[in-house]
Amino acid sequence: MSDNSFGHLFRVTTWGESHGPAIGCVVDGCPPRIPLVEADIQHWMEARKPGTSRFTTQRRESDLVKILSGTFEGQTTGTSISLLIENEDTRSKDYADIKDKFRPGHADYTYWKKYGVRDYRGGGRSSARETACRVAAGGIARKIIPGVTIRGALIQMGDLKVDRSKWDWDECQKNPFWCPDKAMAERWAEFLDATRKRGSSTGAIIEIVASGVPAGWGAPIYGKLDADLASAMMGINAVKGVEIGAGMGAAALSGEDNADEMRMKGNDVEFLSNQAGGILGGISTGQDIVVRFAVKPTSSILTPRRTVDVNGNDTEISTKGRHDPCVGIRAVPVGEAMMACVLADHFLRHRAQVGEPRV
Amino acid sequence: MSDNSFGHLFRVTTWGESHGPAIGCVVDGCPPRIPLVEADIQHWMEARKPGTSRFTTQRRESDLVKILSGTFEGQTTGTSISLLIENEDTRSKDYADIKDKFRPGHADYTYWKKYGVRDYRGGGRSSARETACRVAAGGIARKIIPGVTIRGALIQMGDLKVDRSKWDWDECQKNPFWCPDKAMAERWAEFLDATRKRGSSTGAIIEIVASGVPAGWGAPIYGKLDADLASAMMGINAVKGVEIGAGMGAAALSGEDNADEMRMKGNDVEFLSNQAGGILGGISTGQDIVVRFAVKPTSSILTPRRTVDVNGNDTEISTKGRHDPCVGIRAVPVGEAMMACVLADHFLRHRAQVGEPRV
Amino acid sequence: MSDNSFGHLFRVTTWGESHGPAIGCVVDGCPPRIPLVEADIQHWMEARKPGTSRFTTQRRESDLVKILSGTFEGQTTGTSISLLIENEDTRSKDYADIKDKFRPGHADYTYWKKYGVRDYRGGGRSSARETACRVAAGGIARKIIPGVTIRGALIQMGDLKVDRSKWDWDECQKNPFWCPDKAMAERWAEFLDATRKRGSSTGAIIEIVASGVPAGWGAPIYGKLDADLASAMMGINAVKGVEIGAGMGAAALSGEDNADEMRMKGNDVEFLSNQAGGILGGISTGQDIVVRFAVKPTSSILTPRRTVDVNGNDTEISTKGRHDPCVGIRAVPVGEAMMACVLADHFLRHRAQVGEPRV
Amino acid sequence: MSDNSFGHLFRVTTWGESHGPAIGCVVDGCPPRIPLVEADIQHWMEARKPGTSRFTTQRRESDLVKILSGTFEGQTTGTSISLLIENEDTRSKDYADIKDKFRPGHADYTYWKKYGVRDYRGGGRSSARETACRVAAGGIARKIIPGVTIRGALIQMGDLKVDRSKWDWDECQKNPFWCPDKAMAERWAEFLDATRKRGSSTGAIIEIVASGVPAGWGAPIYGKLDADLASAMMGINAVKGVEIGAGMGAAALSGEDNADEMRMKGNDVEFLSNQAGGILGGISTGQDIVVRFAVKPTSSILTPRRTVDVNGNDTEISTKGRHDPCVGIRAVPVGEAMMACVLADHFLRHRAQVGEPRV
Repeated sequence: MSDNSFGHLFRVTTWGESHGPAIGCVVDGCPPRIPLVEADIQHWMEARKPGTSRFTTQRRESDLVKILSGTFEGQTTGTSISLLIENEDTRSKDYADIKDKFRPGHADYTYWKKYGVRDYRGGGRSSARETACRVAAGGIARKIIPGVTIRGALIQMGDLKVDRSKWDWDECQKNPFWCPDKAMAERWAEFLDATRKRGSSTGAIIEIVASGVPAGWGAPIYGKLDADLASAMMGINAVKGVEIGAGMGAAALSGEDNADEMRMKGNDVEFLSNQAGGILGGISTGQDIVVRFAVKPTSSILTPRRTVDVNGNDTEISTKGRHDPCVGIRAVPVGEAMMACVLADHFLRHRAQVGEPRV
Repeated sequence: MSDNSFGHLFRVTTWGESHGPAIGCVVDGCPPRIPLVEADIQHWMEARKPGTSRFTTQRRESDLVKILSGTFEGQTTGTSISLLIENEDTRSKDYADIKDKFRPGHADYTYWKKYGVRDYRGGGRSSARETACRVAAGGIARKIIPGVTIRGALIQMGDLKVDRSKWDWDECQKNPFWCPDKAMAERWAEFLDATRKRGSSTGAIIEIVASGVPAGWGAPIYGKLDADLASAMMGINAVKGVEIGAGMGAAALSGEDNADEMRMKGNDVEFLSNQAGGILGGISTGQDIVVRFAVKPTSSILTPRRTVDVNGNDTEISTKGRHDPCVGIRAVPVGEAMMACVLADHFLRHRAQVGEPRV
Repeated sequence: MSDNSFGHLFRVTTWGESHGPAIGCVVDGCPPRIPLVEADIQHWMEARKPGTSRFTTQRRESDLVKILSGTFEGQTTGTSISLLIENEDTRSKDYADIKDKFRPGHADYTYWKKYGVRDYRGGGRSSARETACRVAAGGIARKIIPGVTIRGALIQMGDLKVDRSKWDWDECQKNPFWCPDKAMAERWAEFLDATRKRGSSTGAIIEIVASGVPAGWGAPIYGKLDADLASAMMGINAVKGVEIGAGMGAAALSGEDNADEMRMKGNDVEFLSNQAGGILGGISTGQDIVVRFAVKPTSSILTPRRTVDVNGNDTEISTKGRHDPCVGIRAVPVGEAMMACVLADHFLRHRAQVGEPRV
Repeated sequence: MSDNSFGHLFRVTTWGESHGPAIGCVVDGCPPRIPLVEADIQHWMEARKPGTSRFTTQRRESDLVKILSGTFEGQTTGTSISLLIENEDTRSKDYADIKDKFRPGHADYTYWKKYGVRDYRGGGRSSARETACRVAAGGIARKIIPGVTIRGALIQMGDLKVDRSKWDWDECQKNPFWCPDKAMAERWAEFLDATRKRGSSTGAIIEIVASGVPAGWGAPIYGKLDADLASAMMGINAVKGVEIGAGMGAAALSGEDNADEMRMKGNDVEFLSNQAGGILGGISTGQDIVVRFAVKPTSSILTPRRTVDVNGNDTEISTKGRHDPCVGIRAVPVGEAMMACVLADHFLRHRAQVGEPRV
């Protein structure tokens, strides 16, 4: 057991604070002889990197990943892979004013109650900066399951939802929101500018889709693929809800509408709908795996809020650091990475118990 | 790693099929010298037991739990506790008709794709009968955290939602739905009768609330209390979505509305709202922990549905077994049990790292 | 983490006390579609069963194993396998005299100091009766690795060692000691009779050999095959030392004598000696895996010994229960079972990371 | 599960190769508010450091440990602690000659068979350089159990054993062998010089003693303290045997001689001997915990040895790199560190299940 590790056979252990010298992770269980160089990982880091548009924090981090172990001559060796990312743009003095105050909606108070320690510099370990390690690990995970395509999109910001009939995955690469609906991306830009200007922030919903997962991955009861995805997504900073397929909406469905019917299509089974989100009984059906999660609005806002300090006094707080008005945006690549890690883990677990696919 | 175990320090391993001779579990990590007799567990079993009203399956199981190990003279010894529940009312012949067909919405197809085995008798291991073991384990978990009160309610059936202004926990014990809103319970009775009569089924949403959890339980990053709860709830049969506090609705909130403000109340910190659902940064705040999950409608319905069989033929299926028209009802005590197990585990994990509470 | 579980992918969780109603285990991670009926397991139980000669305890247990879950129509399904063995011949009254006394060399005192509970009936959970579950699990493990042959022998009793030049595996089945040296088996019979008559007991050394393990099983650093074997063997009741290959004797070797030289033999690599005991760097070499362990003499003896009681008084104890004068004898099948479990686990772990053998 | 991690609640994950840029580890589960600066760890690194006498490898490493995370203002925060040690003196060209040859007694062949990769530079991940991370982690572990004293000694080199009647712990600090017997240290110096000069190497036995461990640490069945110690010590490079207390010698004892008698001494229980090595039933007795392990002679020797190469040809090898003629010497601080890590882990596990000591 390790509170800083996740996965079973593809196992990632992360470390580092927002304002320490570096952050990093150790990835264990990777199969040997997989081509892996730093550029393979860096590709995915760019998507999560802060400071790339006016809609994300202005902290500037190059987020260069160094591989310190686990590869030899451009291939994985099967041993533990250590990745290190230096922190470059730490301005701890930004936090001097709030040194003794608990920021509402942040983990300041709970860390202090649990550990009796107050690392006030940018949230310390609880900062979303930690998610850079997840993205790096996800870059390795993707190489273990090359037949699987993982894509993410922002589908709701505030109460503005994308029009699913206009969904275009290519659009996601063209706007700063990972928005699959071109028209909505424009509305979000206006909405987010307004939100930022009034010193506020907004929540969002992200959808992650994995295509190409064969039927049979996952496991029953307490190794369920959906339960592992729920844990992986809920564990991302600021996430408050997770849905698979029909999600919370399943409550309002009838049995006829919910259960996806099946038909043969040549030698393959075809499902006529995907309310299940690609998972039944904790095991993949072969359809797209569809996960959604809600990210709460950034709690670091300019608008003054009531709070208390470490000495037990009532006070107010207004957070002036560099923050994302909608952290949900940068959660998209993080969600993709978590999907990749969970699937890589389950691929290895499946291979352990059942062996290579029966052709 | 075990796909049939959950928890780390309070660890439960379950076994058994719906139509095998028995089901059971092994509970490990329980502290010693806790008073424990079978009646302590039986109390909770009664709540989940099938066949107690016309709104649940008519399968009759007395669900008597035997303690086979781990106690001595009415106290836990600190060693593994084995619980056994006999299956009494198994009518495997009910399943003869559908022996070769995959029931849509069930795990039949995915188990078969994964394992190459078809245990057609009532879903085998994938049956919700397994949740009896969770409730039994939950009964032990509650004894480890005696200061914590865990209660559950059904808050939505189909699209009929309770009126929160009329919430009365006592009502939950007075109707067959765990409904906290007396008027809504009556509407649900009509709705469910109609649903059942037309051979259909309905989904539901359950809310579980834990009161009395001190601030500081849980752990950051990959040991988060909310991530563990998400996994625990999503792992219950038929669950498709999990929310903590504001849940999916957090997406539509502003930063001001979302972050719960704090004020001193005497020597204690008081939160002015609970959008967080009692958890910040994966650690309890001391407020009520509030979790909701959606249960899809039973897939076993009388209405004929299109499907395929193990031989690759298109066919139809109509499920005539004894089934719950709304499995969400019996998921309430299961959700409570999972909450209890997760909290007992985190209590032990917290005590390991941080020690007994500093008075 | 579970103190009553071992293995990672082939994972066994045991429960039960010496004088409770039953003992048993849950075996998780077994691949599906392996033929498995109770007789497959019973075969191995017979070897460990008490009361089969005058040299073992006279407790009579039929040790019939019931499979309660995890198989369907004679095959494993891939889900958790529950095994149950009833306790039949429990004479708890034998222990009335020593109810309050700590038996020297037993776990009575340490359990009491840890848990504050005294289950005096035959050692409760600490009894070697628990090893019946290991043998049962080992019977399943062997079916996962059919190409591997596991055999055990007693090679030393007291200070009487077998003559390795006379080693005959067939002899092990012909005497009550698993002795591979016919002449020594006769000497041991005399020695053990004398030991028993004077109310004493004796220690022993067991050797377990696994043949047919391909090169490449195991893993570096903290997943080492030899470290897992050391843990598995040291965890058997009464074991005080574990050796791989040259073992403790490696200390007195020179570098030339220790490192096993290699030569090609056709397309295969042949080692010219096996000081390594079949493991280098924690990974199998393809040679026989050779493990030895020492079992201390039974602490339950007739000769009176000084001890203390639960009330803090000096006292004496003489154990009159039914005990093995040399518990090492019945440890042979237990050691074989632990070898089988460790190898089955590593086979699955290897297959997870590296895939099926490259032909 | 992670092959590069050990411990459950005090959990260490290591990474790095002998000739990579750096090695390091992540230590998770450390309690908060423990004073910890780099010098605390460095103290223990000095003991293991190579190149400090003519009896160890001449590789020069300053082995400076950097703390990259997990502390704030000189205290642990309760989050993951990342330690990094740069490799300075890597001379990979030393290995050019043996690039394609498998060194007998090393893990070259088994890694190649498992992973299909040959990292020939100083053994890559299988190098004993990895043990520097264990010593670093051990330095943290010791701070978690301040009442426990852990000391190690070399007690046998080749077939030369210390005279236990002359044991003086202070002597261990005065000679380059951790030898507690002054006279024997002088004989070893001569013996080892001669061994080195003839291009050979020698094995050794190490004894590690932990004093001050209270009764009650450890756990039954598969969480046994002795089983965990056996795994920890057997997992150290080149170890082939592990003993607790009487060890392999327990085989030759009678029941009377083996079971340690008890007497009250004031309010405490006193044992009249310590054949058990401080552990009964997997739980500490309160006596000294005594573990011994045998280290095989360095396989890297000048004397030519027969071997094969990666292309399947017979060949010879003579290892000219910088090697320890008796790796057992540097294994002493490593054994101490592993003892510290196992005890810290069990202290936390004990506190989880049973709570703080009852005063």
